[in-house]
Amino acid sequence: MKLKIGLIGLGIMGKPMAKNLLKAGHELVVYDVVEAPLRELEKLGAKIGRSSKAVAEQSDLVITMLPDSPDVEKAALGSQGVFEGIKSGSTYIDMSTISPVTSKKLAEAGKAKNLKILDAPVSGGEKGAIEASLTIMVGGPKAVFDECLPLFQVLGKNIVYCGGVGAGQVVKACNQILVAGVLESAGEALVLGAKAGVDPQIVFKVIASGWAMRVLDARVPLLLKRDFKPGFKTRLHYKDLSIALSAGSEYGVSLPVTSLIREMMGAMKVAGRGDFDHSGIITVLEDLAKFEVKA
Amino acid sequence: MKLKIGLIGLGIMGKPMAKNLLKAGHELVVYDVVEAPLRELEKLGAKIGRSSKAVAEQSDLVITMLPDSPDVEKAALGSQGVFEGIKSGSTYIDMSTISPVTSKKLAEAGKAKNLKILDAPVSGGEKGAIEASLTIMVGGPKAVFDECLPLFQVLGKNIVYCGGVGAGQVVKACNQILVAGVLESAGEALVLGAKAGVDPQIVFKVIASGWAMRVLDARVPLLLKRDFKPGFKTRLHYKDLSIALSAGSEYGVSLPVTSLIREMMGAMKVAGRGDFDHSGIITVLEDLAKFEVKA
Repeated sequence: MKLKIGLIGLGIMGKPMAKNLLKAGHELVVYDVVEAPLRELEKLGAKIGRSSKAVAEQSDLVITMLPDSPDVEKAALGSQGVFEGIKSGSTYIDMSTISPVTSKKLAEAGKAKNLKILDAPVSGGEKGAIEASLTIMVGGPKAVFDECLPLFQVLGKNIVYCGGVGAGQVVKACNQILVAGVLESAGEALVLGAKAGVDPQIVFKVIASGWAMRVLDARVPLLLKRDFKPGFKTRLHYKDLSIALSAGSEYGVSLPVTSLIREMMGAMKVAGRGDFDHSGIITVLEDLAKFEVKA
Repeated sequence: MKLKIGLIGLGIMGKPMAKNLLKAGHELVVYDVVEAPLRELEKLGAKIGRSSKAVAEQSDLVITMLPDSPDVEKAALGSQGVFEGIKSGSTYIDMSTISPVTSKKLAEAGKAKNLKILDAPVSGGEKGAIEASLTIMVGGPKAVFDECLPLFQVLGKNIVYCGGVGAGQVVKACNQILVAGVLESAGEALVLGAKAGVDPQIVFKVIASGWAMRVLDARVPLLLKRDFKPGFKTRLHYKDLSIALSAGSEYGVSLPVTSLIREMMGAMKVAGRGDFDHSGIITVLEDLAKFEVKA
């Protein structure tokens, strides 16, 4: 079904997404505070709205794709914003990466106009946006998700329904936690290896194709059944990180995250869990959160 | 070529490795402080040595596979140890995961007997040892590595020459740093996601198949050319981790590593590198180490 879609935010992500929506045959009204991408999209057949409100007035479905929570709040709830123009009963999808708390605020505000609201942050970067291969993590009512699925399929490949309002943002935050952890730990590995005299290409080759990239698939299903039989014992990983830190000390390399994780594995030993599989490090976090993760 | 191999250490890793050596047709002399695996290997055709020294006396090539640096030092350099029994000019491979400093000490001590010494720690766990699919990271003289390659191929699949003495241990330490980082960050993601009400299977599905598992292959080659053009800007990842920490605060989840990494990304902004790709977090570690990683 061809829709009249309003898209607010034509940045690195929004602009290629807009192009994909046009390519799929949808009518598009766009708005951005920057002029150049508006003109570019106009040439491709999009209409230009004068404000978020104006975009919403001319659309059956509104999407925002903006940098941060305050930007989305302003575009949606502010003066000349989406909520001033949007038709009662229509759909509003925020695809920005923002706080789940803000997503809930939007959903709450949408009740007065009986809006169908989803939070649908993406991952995959500019390349994913251009190639329409984004992962899209969606929170909100399941029926609205089902309705919007064909639209998401124009923009991405891996479309995941995550749960109620804000769940998309929560899963996106989880994703960013792991991406950051991988980059930081790989950074520590590369600096230690290189300063200790090993060719960084070799370190890269070993770590990027090694157990780190397989351990989640191997261990998380067991973890979710609370099965912490090793595998690889936490106390041995503690020993290995002690070796890494000694080597760091020897070669003059600070390993802040490795140091912190070693202490957490040390806490495992203190808690009598040194013989748990190293995936059991999650139990230290669970202790802190007074909460247990179970499938 | 069939060898007379001495293997010291028949634990979770050593025992299946011993079996693979026998299967490949090598003669085997084994030693362990525990009796049961000795008897098991004896039934399969191995000889039992009474000490590390006795094993070395009867072998052309000696392997140690022990838990930690002090165990290896004792087995190699201690009373009744390998160095008391080993023939001049023969080969000694330590496959334990120990400090590169200890590996260098062994290599130094081996000079008097003109030993050919390698450090060759493994990854892949018990499963890898059983299936002979271990990754083996080898340090020491390249000619000795070449000589021993057929032997390594009996035990593992991905055999990587890492450089001089201790380089195998350095790369193993690098690998353990990343494995720990992945497990810990995934733990933070799972606890946050679950306590915020998202099905942990969904969090697992998204994070374990997402960008985190692809980001190293995509970005490290660029990083090694000092190319930090985004990609994904550090200041946006900083913002995303701020969202994660706010959500953690909201739901009562402590995210110690995420918190530390956010501060490191904050340091990137202070250093004027907020628009670097997020892989540029390595530059914070480089600043601390007064060192730059380059291919």
